[in-house]
Amino acid sequence: MKIACVLGPMFEDSEFKDPYDALRSAGHEVTIVGLEAGAVLEGSKGKVKAKADKSFKDVKPNDFDALLIPGGSSPDKLRAHDEAVQFVKAFMTARKPVFAICHGPQLLLTADEYKGHRMTAWKTVLGDLQKAGADVVDQEVVVDGNLVTSRMPADIPSFIRESLKVLERAPAKR
Amino acid sequence: MKIACVLGPMFEDSEFKDPYDALRSAGHEVTIVGLEAGAVLEGSKGKVKAKADKSFKDVKPNDFDALLIPGGSSPDKLRAHDEAVQFVKAFMTARKPVFAICHGPQLLLTADEYKGHRMTAWKTVLGDLQKAGADVVDQEVVVDGNLVTSRMPADIPSFIRESLKVLERAPAKR
Repeated sequence: MKIACVLGPMFEDSEFKDPYDALRSAGHEVTIVGLEAGAVLEGSKGKVKAKADKSFKDVKPNDFDALLIPGGSSPDKLRAHDEAVQFVKAFMTARKPVFAICHGPQLLLTADEYKGHRMTAWKTVLGDLQKAGADVVDQEVVVDGNLVTSRMPADIPSFIRESLKVLERAPAKR
Repeated sequence: MKIACVLGPMFEDSEFKDPYDALRSAGHEVTIVGLEAGAVLEGSKGKVKAKADKSFKDVKPNDFDALLIPGGSSPDKLRAHDEAVQFVKAFMTARKPVFAICHGPQLLLTADEYKGHRMTAWKTVLGDLQKAGADVVDQEVVVDGNLVTSRMPADIPSFIRESLKVLERAPAKR
């Protein structure tokens, strides 16, 4: 399947690289979508660099079957831009698979796509979601329909396992 | 007056340094309180370094008359620790002057100190506060009783001006 990975500066290194690698190893095509095509983004721990393949202006949600939102400071940087928020919102509205870890669910909060969805997130974001009225739970991975969420780097193996399971059963919707 | 400045890693350089310098120039004593006493903290733009004078364990809210919360990634790092959240909460409960800029109000959100207060914040945080039920407004500085909030580095002059005004009229409460 074709998967968009939305990425901004200061992403959490392993929360990008491990799911990205696992999705590609499973045969999926992953496109890194950022604020500027060709921009080289650095992880907050300085271990991983990634180049944005496309900007939000270059792509449409309909070009993709699923969405990956890594954590770190990246989601808060992205959600300051309406083009990123609307891109994410379209996947939720279409009920396509969305995989968000750590601070990733901040994009769901800003996109107004949290009510009626059971989810988890990094603890500071979990509190924000809860105060906004989301149905939150503090566990390593939460699968709610096509939405998979996790809290932190230690949860990555469960996050990848459940994300791949969702892709196996989700029909391509493009 | 004695002012606590709560600071964590990746603070926004000018949102710490400019108010910090201005408060000291006005004759106030500013103590940097962080997660670890003596730790050297770096600004996200790499322009400013600051050493934590004290840790949250070393101080009590009653040691101080007012609180400064600079922005950047610092507030989200701090609010993952309950000792930081409870420290901030105590200033709000005591209605002492609190000055929070950019991401600073994230600490007020996690501390459950946003209802019944009119405030502003960086636009991503403003949205979170609004969804949680806060009374938010998008302007360069908002003064609500002893609470002064601003949105971003461009607002710093107004933020400093109004913070100093609040200190002039606030009685020392220790």
